[in-house]
Amino acid sequence: MLIPEWLTHYKEEHLSGDIIAGTIVAAVLVPQAMAYGMLAGLPAETALYSSVLPLILYAIFGSSRTLAVGPVGLMSLMTGAALIELNISDPSSMIIAAHTLALLTGLILLLMRLAQLGSIINFLSHPVISGFVSASAIIIIISQLKHLLGLDIPRDIATHEALLLLADKLLDSNIATVTIGISCLLIIYISKNPLNLLLIRHSFNPLIIQLVSKSGPIVAIASSSLVVYYLNLNSQQHVSIVGHIPAGLPSLSLPSLDTELIKTLLPSAVMIALIGYLESVSIAKSMASQKRQKIDANKELIGLGTANIASAICNGYPVAGGFGRSMVNFTAGANTPLASIITALLVALTLAFLTPLFFFLPKAALAAIIIIAVVSLIDTHTLKHAWQYDKADASSMIITFLTALLINIESGILAGIIISIGLYLHRSSKPHIAIVGRVGSTEHYRNIERFKVKTEPNILALRVDENLYFVNTNYLEDTIIQLVSDNKDIDHVVLICSSISFIDNSALETLENILYRLQQAKMNLYLAEVKGPVMDKLKTTAFINKLGTSNIFISTHQAIQSLKV
Amino acid sequence: MLIPEWLTHYKEEHLSGDIIAGTIVAAVLVPQAMAYGMLAGLPAETALYSSVLPLILYAIFGSSRTLAVGPVGLMSLMTGAALIELNISDPSSMIIAAHTLALLTGLILLLMRLAQLGSIINFLSHPVISGFVSASAIIIIISQLKHLLGLDIPRDIATHEALLLLADKLLDSNIATVTIGISCLLIIYISKNPLNLLLIRHSFNPLIIQLVSKSGPIVAIASSSLVVYYLNLNSQQHVSIVGHIPAGLPSLSLPSLDTELIKTLLPSAVMIALIGYLESVSIAKSMASQKRQKIDANKELIGLGTANIASAICNGYPVAGGFGRSMVNFTAGANTPLASIITALLVALTLAFLTPLFFFLPKAALAAIIIIAVVSLIDTHTLKHAWQYDKADASSMIITFLTALLINIESGILAGIIISIGLYLHRSSKPHIAIVGRVGSTEHYRNIERFKVKTEPNILALRVDENLYFVNTNYLEDTIIQLVSDNKDIDHVVLICSSISFIDNSALETLENILYRLQQAKMNLYLAEVKGPVMDKLKTTAFINKLGTSNIFISTHQAIQSLKV
Repeated sequence: MLIPEWLTHYKEEHLSGDIIAGTIVAAVLVPQAMAYGMLAGLPAETALYSSVLPLILYAIFGSSRTLAVGPVGLMSLMTGAALIELNISDPSSMIIAAHTLALLTGLILLLMRLAQLGSIINFLSHPVISGFVSASAIIIIISQLKHLLGLDIPRDIATHEALLLLADKLLDSNIATVTIGISCLLIIYISKNPLNLLLIRHSFNPLIIQLVSKSGPIVAIASSSLVVYYLNLNSQQHVSIVGHIPAGLPSLSLPSLDTELIKTLLPSAVMIALIGYLESVSIAKSMASQKRQKIDANKELIGLGTANIASAICNGYPVAGGFGRSMVNFTAGANTPLASIITALLVALTLAFLTPLFFFLPKAALAAIIIIAVVSLIDTHTLKHAWQYDKADASSMIITFLTALLINIESGILAGIIISIGLYLHRSSKPHIAIVGRVGSTEHYRNIERFKVKTEPNILALRVDENLYFVNTNYLEDTIIQLVSDNKDIDHVVLICSSISFIDNSALETLENILYRLQQAKMNLYLAEVKGPVMDKLKTTAFINKLGTSNIFISTHQAIQSLKV
Repeated sequence: MLIPEWLTHYKEEHLSGDIIAGTIVAAVLVPQAMAYGMLAGLPAETALYSSVLPLILYAIFGSSRTLAVGPVGLMSLMTGAALIELNISDPSSMIIAAHTLALLTGLILLLMRLAQLGSIINFLSHPVISGFVSASAIIIIISQLKHLLGLDIPRDIATHEALLLLADKLLDSNIATVTIGISCLLIIYISKNPLNLLLIRHSFNPLIIQLVSKSGPIVAIASSSLVVYYLNLNSQQHVSIVGHIPAGLPSLSLPSLDTELIKTLLPSAVMIALIGYLESVSIAKSMASQKRQKIDANKELIGLGTANIASAICNGYPVAGGFGRSMVNFTAGANTPLASIITALLVALTLAFLTPLFFFLPKAALAAIIIIAVVSLIDTHTLKHAWQYDKADASSMIITFLTALLINIESGILAGIIISIGLYLHRSSKPHIAIVGRVGSTEHYRNIERFKVKTEPNILALRVDENLYFVNTNYLEDTIIQLVSDNKDIDHVVLICSSISFIDNSALETLENILYRLQQAKMNLYLAEVKGPVMDKLKTTAFINKLGTSNIFISTHQAIQSLKV
């Protein structure tokens, strides 16, 4: 169990790819982790602690070969929001709460594995995911503007209030900070886009292109730190810097289990676990499919669960698979999770020896890293397509987006789930019911409204294009009764069940009711094209006894031929 | 508008039926109303006030010709529970709260009409309804045992606590009260069942049978009142009696609108409105279908909404259509809502002149009336059938039942709705996906596991028996990718869409994904038998562009013939 399959079958040819990818990811991860830590309102070291052991645990237990686990934007935002709600002023209690949150997240993921609840993420539709991810990106960007402008904005206010306060204080911005921030934004952006395209156009080696395009954050933090140090900007211009990061690896310890704290954090932990799992699995799947590898949802739960527990024990905070770093890992040629272990070791070395290098790192540089990392998450493309294809789906996306932006992410996700399920149920509550007739002299029967078909005056042949279950049984009954009371010539009602894969108890009772009502009015009910699994369940019911097996036809054609006058 | 259609077309031949039915219903309603008032913890006159104007309003605005509106068991129970939660000790404030609850219920029903939300009751499956109705019946019976035994049990304790307390105090029961109670139970039961059957066997006039079988409560209250009066049981044996009921019709007044009270009562009012509407519409529909009449769900909302507002104005409490009395009305020959108006007038006369008659009426007699009225609501039949047909459906019923019994009715209903929707979504999250092959030399293609069919080695033909939407898109993608990676001979994947009536945005993206993944692996995707409405929506999408219209076949046969080697 503890020696993963990839390790027992490790091939030497994979080593160089793993080392290169692991090293590049480490170079991306260190500044990103510090930035995300800031986003969560936690010290830089907490985020770095989350970037060592969790990666190794995921490498052992996870199923993706290239997923890069560690601090990520959405989790950091949600962690920050959960911690603010605790109303703790003491920073050290805040850090302890972050460890507890990671522990809870890990335990919830393992519980989901035990209870086979991994499929719960299927309840999140793509528009809903796109809606809350876009909202989160905007919240994150707005939360970073204060660092970019050198303004003092409290953390515990709503996003729109923060925006108003920023506008109000705009003229008080710290010029040195703004200059550093905008320069960093430009460095990262240019290395990522125009420079990258230029190198591609001149057919450079892909590894070099990769290195250059991902070097923006490193260049930004190195150059901005140097500028602050040499110009003494922190003391002379009040440029905010990272300051002292304690050197050395984290001590291992289980967070103290304060039941009151656990109770308060639990709802947030559930959401963080769900969203972390969802994000990680989607990224892992999209990479695996390109190499025809498989992702095992159950292993993912264990991998992420143990990674989060490891994070808690190392004094870290909740972790998940990150999109940006996973892509770096994948395109830089990672072949196995060994790449992640190399990343973890390099972060550990950084923690042991290099933390003094980050003393003069301006927070504005970290804000620039975060902003560039999340700006691509704002997804107007999906909204446009959803709107064109289905307005109802698009509206669930808009409501999720607005709720997440104006209230909070958890409410946005909940609202999105409720609305998308409600919309689906509403849709299936009025199923498409087609009256069908015979196409020419074939054995095909089609919708009378779409095809030129022949119908029999004494037969009403109906095809219901939906499973029959409690939400639509009333509609079915009302429609049939309406149709037969509108047309007094009808003696026989044939229900074509070719699209029905499932009939629940309520629908079964409704069918009995329909049969009873038709018989009362001297008409008869027939079923045609009942699917095998549906027939298997119906066989033993009172409904089939009352209907009589002679009223069940294999094909619509057979039914019509037997019943026509 | 104010002169209903039934009145403008009133036929003389309907009059005698309406008068007889109206009179019988009044004789059933008066004792029943007092009993239900007691169940709600309200004075007898409050329930009688709810039995005059609401009936007339429903006769004008409702759509059922025979629904008997007024105080009913379930509403009274829910009203009682809502009032207890207010923690009011002052009886007059409690009564005012009951009026407010009726007003809110009425307004919610009218709002549901305005917002076209009548179909919301479709979210209640039959097993869930059966579950909470059975639980309510048991709660009601237990709540009446104290009156039957003459014991003093507080109202504001949970049902199981009340049961324990009853068992504890059983030996302190008031012998005179118990004797009266059990006698009344026997009188009502015998007139309803054995006596009724006897009369039917001897072919008596149906009207006489009806009169006798419904006379039990009247006989019980008359005889028990006389016994209490003549033996002076109330003062000598401490038998609890109804006592003074103020004579005269209610004064009309709008309940005072206390915003704090409204806020507290609102959740209960929503549930009472929903359940009242659900109960009334089901009863009305089942009677209407027997006479091929129609029930208009929108008119029902207005009818019940105005009836509840009328109840509030007359110092009453929430009302709905009652099953028992509606059946009496229907079988006694009511032809039009005039019967209900006659009932209302007779109740008004009772209020004006006959209230002193009820002074010595023992509460144990009222308890007996309630118990016999609700005992038939305990529905083990549905549970048995549901269990045989579908264990999951049955379990949603059991959970609803237990939650309603052990926590409260509203929680039971909510739990039931969530579980039944969750079960349905869970079911459709793993749709039946059949690999199909050709049946002999026909053009029919069927499941390879159920039929002897011929398949082509290079073609995977799949029929998905479910709409494609966010809940099942992951499963579809995983299944297809799994199937093609298990079989390396496959070049073509044909998706047979005959059971698909709807493809949502998430599923559309998943189809694009599947197409991309298949193309990456040098395979091709085809669609067959796409339904008209589905194709209409797909036409404009990027997916169809990428797929190419030549990859869409009208029939499975055509697809297989074109693609086979």
